[in-house]
Amino acid sequence: MGVENAYFPQLIPMSFLTKEAEHVEGFAPELALVTQGGAKELDEPLVVRPTSETIVNHMFSQWIQSYRDLPLRINQWCNVHRWEMRTRPFIRTLEFLWQEGHTAHATAEEAEAQTVRVLRLYESFARDVAAMPVVAGRKSARESFAGANCTYTIEAMMQDRRALQAGTSHNLGDNFARAFKTQYLGEDGERKYVHQSSWGVSTRLVGGIIMTHGDDSGLRLPPRMSPTQVVVVPIVKKDMDVEAVLAAAKGVAETLQRAGVRTLLDDSLDRTPGWKFNNYELKGVPVRIEIGPKDIEKNACVVARRDVVGKEGKTFGVSLEEGALVTHVEGVLAEIQESLLAEATRFRDENIVDVQSYDELKEVVASGRWARGWWCGSDEDEVRVKDETQATLRCFPFDQPGGGGACLLTGKPADEVALFAKAY
Amino acid sequence: MGVENAYFPQLIPMSFLTKEAEHVEGFAPELALVTQGGAKELDEPLVVRPTSETIVNHMFSQWIQSYRDLPLRINQWCNVHRWEMRTRPFIRTLEFLWQEGHTAHATAEEAEAQTVRVLRLYESFARDVAAMPVVAGRKSARESFAGANCTYTIEAMMQDRRALQAGTSHNLGDNFARAFKTQYLGEDGERKYVHQSSWGVSTRLVGGIIMTHGDDSGLRLPPRMSPTQVVVVPIVKKDMDVEAVLAAAKGVAETLQRAGVRTLLDDSLDRTPGWKFNNYELKGVPVRIEIGPKDIEKNACVVARRDVVGKEGKTFGVSLEEGALVTHVEGVLAEIQESLLAEATRFRDENIVDVQSYDELKEVVASGRWARGWWCGSDEDEVRVKDETQATLRCFPFDQPGGGGACLLTGKPADEVALFAKAY
Repeated sequence: MGVENAYFPQLIPMSFLTKEAEHVEGFAPELALVTQGGAKELDEPLVVRPTSETIVNHMFSQWIQSYRDLPLRINQWCNVHRWEMRTRPFIRTLEFLWQEGHTAHATAEEAEAQTVRVLRLYESFARDVAAMPVVAGRKSARESFAGANCTYTIEAMMQDRRALQAGTSHNLGDNFARAFKTQYLGEDGERKYVHQSSWGVSTRLVGGIIMTHGDDSGLRLPPRMSPTQVVVVPIVKKDMDVEAVLAAAKGVAETLQRAGVRTLLDDSLDRTPGWKFNNYELKGVPVRIEIGPKDIEKNACVVARRDVVGKEGKTFGVSLEEGALVTHVEGVLAEIQESLLAEATRFRDENIVDVQSYDELKEVVASGRWARGWWCGSDEDEVRVKDETQATLRCFPFDQPGGGGACLLTGKPADEVALFAKAY
Repeated sequence: MGVENAYFPQLIPMSFLTKEAEHVEGFAPELALVTQGGAKELDEPLVVRPTSETIVNHMFSQWIQSYRDLPLRINQWCNVHRWEMRTRPFIRTLEFLWQEGHTAHATAEEAEAQTVRVLRLYESFARDVAAMPVVAGRKSARESFAGANCTYTIEAMMQDRRALQAGTSHNLGDNFARAFKTQYLGEDGERKYVHQSSWGVSTRLVGGIIMTHGDDSGLRLPPRMSPTQVVVVPIVKKDMDVEAVLAAAKGVAETLQRAGVRTLLDDSLDRTPGWKFNNYELKGVPVRIEIGPKDIEKNACVVARRDVVGKEGKTFGVSLEEGALVTHVEGVLAEIQESLLAEATRFRDENIVDVQSYDELKEVVASGRWARGWWCGSDEDEVRVKDETQATLRCFPFDQPGGGGACLLTGKPADEVALFAKAY
């Protein structure tokens, strides 16, 4: 996409935030402030960045002079802080890690296209890499980012059927450009405000993956993103002659590593095979290979899937011959990837229910599921639904039925369906 | 090395730092403090991490139970803050980015071996990748890390002949283990303190590379670490038929990209070739390829080296034939890498002078060079040299002449030579 990595300072003068009125109003309750540095009280408090639109625009307004400097697309990988009252591991933490992209464009159309393009990238990453099906769509005005014209989102369903906002992309219009005077000289000789987007995904995705795929034995990681795809466990006891078994296990690991499979050999004699089985199940390693004296006699090993519990997930007598072993393991990894996505997609689709009325919405939400229905309510209507049902408007999905219908709450003609759900 | 990446919280309770007396004493004057969060005054100020030994030990003391958990080796890539009075871009900044490694071992010997192994890795990275020759050695007690038994360092010479401490590795002994009760149960059933190392290199290395290799036209980046190794600039004017030239330039870029050379094609028509030449020289791209209508007639291009100024750095008539082009460019990149290192090494070696007496040291240091001589002075002696000459003891190099001699200051028998220099 032509995005370049950069890094901006973390501590932002408070005066930067106050330049964009909606932005500071949205973030003020969540800020951490540095008030002392080098054993002295500071004249102006510094904000520990909750996001970087303000400091990015402080620089963009100096870097961007002419249409030749556009589009400008930067990204940074960093930590951000938001002072949350109630935290949850990975999902809502005082500090989190993310990437935040910031772009500036000559026209509103380009900024909108960039905003949607990134959201679609997040959608395909979630689906094709994290095996996490999501609903991509537009946030309501009330749920949009503080300072944006419009926010797009991917919404994922966790196993308790709560919604998780897993990534967002904002069309900032020229709001920050006006606040920071980020202007360019057009080919026509006129000075104009740039149009901007910003977008991010965070370590919250880690929580999403845990709560989409995990089971009672721990994590189940999708093979495409698992740091370890295969763990090789030699079946040995401390008192037997272990050399032959360790050598065979090492051979298996090296064969797979040569084929590009991310493989870990755990040949420690300090832990029993049973301890290791539990440990790597907990950590979600997709495939475990067991190899003991009896397997070696048959020039074979046992391949166990993490996603299928018990003997059903095991294939016995898999040949140690290089080609056969690699083909088998790569096949199993692909199957697991596909199976995790299929399972999660089925679960999601079974738990989204079309509703015609507010009573139906209440019933569906009370049962823990997501309600989808025609909607043209106001901000106040959204607040009412939230207060009465705890469900929030997650998004207007990109994927619309077409046509129109009566708004489930007001009965007025609506041309979009919205999704409502309890959320993290 | 068996190191795993991890991430620890950035904001550290002040009470953690005060557990290790030397550590807090060393860092107290440089701390940034968060005193407000979520619009409220905090009960205990939080330190914006200057380094993470304390919070790492807070967790290690819970994670480490038995000898089976050792060695434990983690690393994090993150930002740190040190409230500096005088800052310099990349060299001494209030915030910087680094990696910090933290390890725990069963024995003092293992911790020492780990400490040195990492320092040697930094040395070879600086030399073989950044083309930055360094002197590896041991810091004096006075210059060691606050809380360490001993610090190892790599010291680089900048073009103004000032020394730059470019990476450090600390043997922490059991100092933090005692402060945080980081203990393990040995195979013998006894509870023991772990022995630890910590180590880091930072964005200061970027400053080191700029000041080792830069010239009056800007950066000169070593090919092995340059994000762009080759830029292709089509020689076109707005009013000519540009299609054939752009197509040929694109062909050159794609040929090199296929061969794994990090190549950028700048085919924008908004900027002149001359503007682009200056721009990529400023940014230090090692090789520029120019291709215009006359080159295309000869099925050739011009290859220009960034490190050799003017026509001498240019090769005309380099064939566009795939094999010949790739071989030529890869050869030039290797030559540049070697040449930058050779130039910097010659410069460093010419500017380190052996001295026998304090008068000689003063003279050498006053002329801007580094002085090397026998040394067994005390902390007070080091302070005297610093106060009188502005030079500090950079290190006792690993590479020693052997034998012994009279300390250049005290005349007492010394068994090591030390390096003194003015430093950043």
